[in-house]
Amino acid sequence: MLLTRFVLALALASATLSAVASPDTGRSALHDYRVVTVAEGLVRPWSIAFLPNGDLLVTEKSGQLRVIRDGQLLEDAVSGLPAVHDVGQGGLLDVVPHPDWEENGWIYLSYARPLADDASTTAVVRGRLDGLSWVDQEEVFEARSRGRGHYGSRLAFDAEDYLFITVGDRQAAAEGDLEAHPAQDLSNHHGVVLRLNEDGSVPEDNPFVDDDDALPEIWSFGHRNPQGLVVDPATGEVWITEHGPQGGDELNRVEPAKNYGWPVVGYGVHYGSGKAIHEGTLREGMENPVKVWVPSTGVSGLALYDGEAFPHWRGHFLAGGLSGQRIDLIGLDDGKVVREEILLRGQGRVRDVRVGPDGFVYVAIDHRDGEGTPILRLEPVPRAPLD
Amino acid sequence: MLLTRFVLALALASATLSAVASPDTGRSALHDYRVVTVAEGLVRPWSIAFLPNGDLLVTEKSGQLRVIRDGQLLEDAVSGLPAVHDVGQGGLLDVVPHPDWEENGWIYLSYARPLADDASTTAVVRGRLDGLSWVDQEEVFEARSRGRGHYGSRLAFDAEDYLFITVGDRQAAAEGDLEAHPAQDLSNHHGVVLRLNEDGSVPEDNPFVDDDDALPEIWSFGHRNPQGLVVDPATGEVWITEHGPQGGDELNRVEPAKNYGWPVVGYGVHYGSGKAIHEGTLREGMENPVKVWVPSTGVSGLALYDGEAFPHWRGHFLAGGLSGQRIDLIGLDDGKVVREEILLRGQGRVRDVRVGPDGFVYVAIDHRDGEGTPILRLEPVPRAPLD
Repeated sequence: MLLTRFVLALALASATLSAVASPDTGRSALHDYRVVTVAEGLVRPWSIAFLPNGDLLVTEKSGQLRVIRDGQLLEDAVSGLPAVHDVGQGGLLDVVPHPDWEENGWIYLSYARPLADDASTTAVVRGRLDGLSWVDQEEVFEARSRGRGHYGSRLAFDAEDYLFITVGDRQAAAEGDLEAHPAQDLSNHHGVVLRLNEDGSVPEDNPFVDDDDALPEIWSFGHRNPQGLVVDPATGEVWITEHGPQGGDELNRVEPAKNYGWPVVGYGVHYGSGKAIHEGTLREGMENPVKVWVPSTGVSGLALYDGEAFPHWRGHFLAGGLSGQRIDLIGLDDGKVVREEILLRGQGRVRDVRVGPDGFVYVAIDHRDGEGTPILRLEPVPRAPLD
Repeated sequence: MLLTRFVLALALASATLSAVASPDTGRSALHDYRVVTVAEGLVRPWSIAFLPNGDLLVTEKSGQLRVIRDGQLLEDAVSGLPAVHDVGQGGLLDVVPHPDWEENGWIYLSYARPLADDASTTAVVRGRLDGLSWVDQEEVFEARSRGRGHYGSRLAFDAEDYLFITVGDRQAAAEGDLEAHPAQDLSNHHGVVLRLNEDGSVPEDNPFVDDDDALPEIWSFGHRNPQGLVVDPATGEVWITEHGPQGGDELNRVEPAKNYGWPVVGYGVHYGSGKAIHEGTLREGMENPVKVWVPSTGVSGLALYDGEAFPHWRGHFLAGGLSGQRIDLIGLDDGKVVREEILLRGQGRVRDVRVGPDGFVYVAIDHRDGEGTPILRLEPVPRAPLD
């Protein structure tokens, strides 16, 4: 049954490759593509995950975990999920399967967990699916950080099964004494990338485990709101897109123990007023981004293309944009941007971008008005001369 | 003779279009191209101009005006040019023919004019070529601004034969009371775009002609160092690329009487220290750029593609970058960037980009070490599937 589905998928992929470019063909320097609707009627989808059994999982911010099976969005959502704080940017957020899902069945969810006094924090649990029931739930992580939005919440495993988690700065005010901002304070989980063992325990070789003034989960700090996260399977490098202030969205390579500067140094200004935030962009001991978007594109989900369907995109980033309603294809050489293209422009606010096992690029469209939105995918079409 | 050369050019263009993509083919979303060397051994070229007789003129910063005729760089430079202040960013800078050159023979030059006390200013003259002699020189403009670099100096005619000139802020310090910076003061020519009649007189409908506190040549102000300038022949819109502070290069549409904010608001920080310059990016009455480059690409010459050889690039900007060693292809829709690609990366510091009458894209490469550099051009090759 699984094999049949896989063969069918291959056949569909081959059919796609021989398709003729239509007037709706998207053009890029190295590949042309067409946009196909995978499913419709998702309400504020936040993340897409692929299970080795062929199912696609989609989180909806309101707290629903949806399943797309054999190309159909199942009517029923998964039952038994934890309660989420579906307010503002909060809700059910990321979903990723354990790399050894076929052996252990673990699925990891991040979400805005409701606390007392109408507050919330970023939390991660894992559980298993029994049909459409969420079972065996275990606690993985709860952030020591409270506030309004900026949950971060992206999850990614590296090749050694370490789990990376982003946590935003919870919208702590970036005013006054910037060095006293919680994102510059290692005794909390505001504005951090974290590294955990798969069960939520702290790896012994984490960079701050011997620092009594730092929480041991911390991998890097000084972030605002990392909304995209990938671990390069080839190099182990950890990359994030960071939803910044106005004109300050960033792509960063995050290395252990390093300080990415928010809000002391960085790009962008306060949304609305346009007033300066930072003392500048450079300070000894604070890292600079690889790329900044001006104007902001509202960076969201991030993928590193490693599929077969678009072979010349391998090694390139695909960075979603909410307000920009687009995906940026970004190629680096020696840490510098050498290729940069805008894909899928104007098809809606891009919340998540993932590469499927078929090598197609899957995209979650998220409209704030709560209308149903699609999951789309980009499929290759032959590159041909234009009329 | 002229007709023969034109027919030959057409034949060459057709041959190019049937060429096969080589391993050195550059890829872009809408066209592939190859890079051809037009001439070699230019020393610090700054600008390229096309005469209707088929000659290419190239300025060299040291004060030489060179001629490329029938594909050969003539050994002798044009004699009789004005003395230039070849120090730092100064020298012989832009060259453009009058739109009616075939009738009147006028060629316009901008340059750093030496003043007393080792100072200099931005000046524009026009003259004619008699063989390789510069004759009939007339004064067109001398800026009321003194200082070190940031000459601006780009020239462009619109469809009504008005001459636009950019003048940089002459590196006046952007510190302390930013509103008192000379680029915010209309009684001088620091950091301005100017509009003149072809003889240098002031058009009666210039935006500040009735303002006793403003110089009447001024079209727009609050600029830092506009190094690229085009007038869209279709719309009459005036566009500049502005070499900004670190992380603050800009693309701007400049409208009459408007203030582009330098140094009160804007992007980027002081080169070197990375310290903030601006109060922010927004202030009532100050305009925001269409695009900002972060990191800076060192914007230089700007073209608006209107040729036939790359038909799908029509209406796109081609923005040269010095430190970035590249050309950015930029497409706008309703004032927003919808296409953005990096062309010709890594072939040297791009000082000028121009579209030839053959529709090829001509590029001046400028290396600060004073070694000879080429004029290159991009020619189309068929867009084909990749291996």
